[in-house]
Amino acid sequence: MARIVMKFGGTSMAGIERIRHVAGLVKREAERGNQVAVVVSAMAGETDRLVQLCREAASLYDPREYDVVVASGEQVTSGLLAITLQGMGLNARSYMGWQLPIRASGHAAALIDHIEAEVLERAFAAGGIAVIPGFQGVTELGDVATLGRGGSDTSAVALAVAMKADRCDIYTDVDGVYTTDPRIVPKARKLARITYEEMLELASVGAKVLQTRSVGLAMRYNMPLQVLSSFEDVPGTMIVADDAIEDRDMERNLITGIAYDKNEAMITLFGLPDESGTVAKIFGPLAEAGINVDVIVQSSPIEGQRSALTFTVPKASLDHCLDALARHKAEIGYDEIIHYTDVVKVSVVGVGMRSNPGVAAKMFQVLAERRINIFAISTSEIKVSVIIDMDYAELAVRVLHTAFGLDQEDAA
Amino acid sequence: MARIVMKFGGTSMAGIERIRHVAGLVKREAERGNQVAVVVSAMAGETDRLVQLCREAASLYDPREYDVVVASGEQVTSGLLAITLQGMGLNARSYMGWQLPIRASGHAAALIDHIEAEVLERAFAAGGIAVIPGFQGVTELGDVATLGRGGSDTSAVALAVAMKADRCDIYTDVDGVYTTDPRIVPKARKLARITYEEMLELASVGAKVLQTRSVGLAMRYNMPLQVLSSFEDVPGTMIVADDAIEDRDMERNLITGIAYDKNEAMITLFGLPDESGTVAKIFGPLAEAGINVDVIVQSSPIEGQRSALTFTVPKASLDHCLDALARHKAEIGYDEIIHYTDVVKVSVVGVGMRSNPGVAAKMFQVLAERRINIFAISTSEIKVSVIIDMDYAELAVRVLHTAFGLDQEDAA
Repeated sequence: MARIVMKFGGTSMAGIERIRHVAGLVKREAERGNQVAVVVSAMAGETDRLVQLCREAASLYDPREYDVVVASGEQVTSGLLAITLQGMGLNARSYMGWQLPIRASGHAAALIDHIEAEVLERAFAAGGIAVIPGFQGVTELGDVATLGRGGSDTSAVALAVAMKADRCDIYTDVDGVYTTDPRIVPKARKLARITYEEMLELASVGAKVLQTRSVGLAMRYNMPLQVLSSFEDVPGTMIVADDAIEDRDMERNLITGIAYDKNEAMITLFGLPDESGTVAKIFGPLAEAGINVDVIVQSSPIEGQRSALTFTVPKASLDHCLDALARHKAEIGYDEIIHYTDVVKVSVVGVGMRSNPGVAAKMFQVLAERRINIFAISTSEIKVSVIIDMDYAELAVRVLHTAFGLDQEDAA
Repeated sequence: MARIVMKFGGTSMAGIERIRHVAGLVKREAERGNQVAVVVSAMAGETDRLVQLCREAASLYDPREYDVVVASGEQVTSGLLAITLQGMGLNARSYMGWQLPIRASGHAAALIDHIEAEVLERAFAAGGIAVIPGFQGVTELGDVATLGRGGSDTSAVALAVAMKADRCDIYTDVDGVYTTDPRIVPKARKLARITYEEMLELASVGAKVLQTRSVGLAMRYNMPLQVLSSFEDVPGTMIVADDAIEDRDMERNLITGIAYDKNEAMITLFGLPDESGTVAKIFGPLAEAGINVDVIVQSSPIEGQRSALTFTVPKASLDHCLDALARHKAEIGYDEIIHYTDVVKVSVVGVGMRSNPGVAAKMFQVLAERRINIFAISTSEIKVSVIIDMDYAELAVRVLHTAFGLDQEDAA
């Protein structure tokens, strides 16, 4: 007997037919003798609709009331799944965030503080299946709180930790984590296992299978995650700790996957004074405006005593960013500002590169052979990212995928 | 300064533009220095949609989970109205049924037990406006409960009683209670005042302005109700106690209004044994099947020792009713059963008839003059109802409206 959290996303809950299919998957786990808690998202499109209503009601809406409105989507699907499971003869019921309770702090992007597992323990002891709306909790003041977009993944992992589950299964509309985007590289392989760290790097560079926050949480509590399809009955990808993999895969690949992200814009400031404090003057105002800066490259002085600085920001933040820099122009002291939106960030990711310093060099060489210009570079312990022209995105991913030995050998 | 509950129905909440208009009406009351609690319905059509989803999930759905699903409609509109009021600079917030709390018993058609007014008192003391989802409460076990269709009217009255309001204003898509349906009788007059008893009789015979239950509750606690339009800024109809009217209107009409109901079916059983207990054998099984029987007429024996019995049931219950009677045919001992669906119930209503026994006679005479056959008659202290052929519905309502002096004299 195992204790399992099963989480289903919006496309899996989009309508009664799909909910019935989900109920079938839950039933199968229950009939294996497992204790099951199910975490559900709102029907696909419903949260967008509710967010839009809040925006129309007032452009600066109160996050507390926003949470009351948007939490309703998961309330509906959890009730409907409980009804469907009961209709199949199973002992199931729903528990809202405020009923368990799932304690959280803040509004609109609340953080989970604590989940009481007592109610669930009683339910499991009585042979029951618990259906829990994702994305929601309750504040200390007794108000509904939501966790921010994609928060249901985090709900599922937090719940798995609280109830000491053996595994947290994330059912989604893809059947696992791939070495890269199969739409670009038909030879992409589904990974049987991947580490939390690799998954984090792949997620943060645009492989949006799981909310980054949920992977971080799973890593912290060493909760095994499984990504699998709610539509196809095939094995998914296990996301586990580093040591859980290396014991078994002596000859695992140096590189686990190639990711790309087309949602970054690149900004270059020319003619910066070459004095200490300049970088702080640039990034201080951006941090205040809540803008996430990613790749940063400071080039050596190119014209006299003045240098240039290049960095990337999410495209959605570009206008805010340019506005903040314009307001602080005198203070920073740059001559000229240029921005590019036709860029892509391509990253090679893998824990294997920790012990192999040649990955970056090999990546640059492969791109150079194809005459692909690199505008900026950033590295971490298990990742090398480059910013290149958007036109070469697919080509770069493909050649890197082949060069690092990731191609599926028996691909049709 | 007055303390007021304002209740808005589904058509008043159908979309952000209408919610903005509602917020304007709330703002006006608040700016008059009044303490205001607002009770809202779900957007028009939303509850139907949610009920339909539950039915599709399982035909015999769990009422507890049904309540979780359908309560979400009012949750959404209460959050949106709070956001809109805040956007107009008002101090407003929503309180879910489980937050106040509104204590209720049962599911799907729960009864309100008690409403805690303490949270509202604190809100009012701080100059706040409370927005409360109608139709919902919370059970002793901490589960969401809903009050049955139209329950928001009852929520509003119960809340008005709990917070000792001076008045409960029910905003709807009609601008008051009329002497009869203005679509049939253009000379119908809007009533400035009507008693609870009259409103109950008008509602129960098909003038569906207010949920019957809410009027009964208002009567019990002597809470003045006002029905008025959320679309037009004109005076509505006050619903008050009998003595609150008679003091002022010495010469009020004998009859307050004419109602009609096309949703009744008539059943006649022929050849019943003329023995004690026959009637109980008929209505026992119907009561067990939860069928509401309305008008009942027992005719004297017409063929030897056997008699006939006629009664009406809601059209929606007709099949169940015929089925129950067929199953008990031997026990009851009738020869033949006939049912009619092309009938209408027309009622004249007015507290004035208590002291004037001539109303029924006048009604029968007016109908006889138009050669309208009466199939069955039922009376209460303040109402006379007749069952007639559906074809004569409009004619009967019109001639009765004129005969009882209800026509608007200055009608265009």
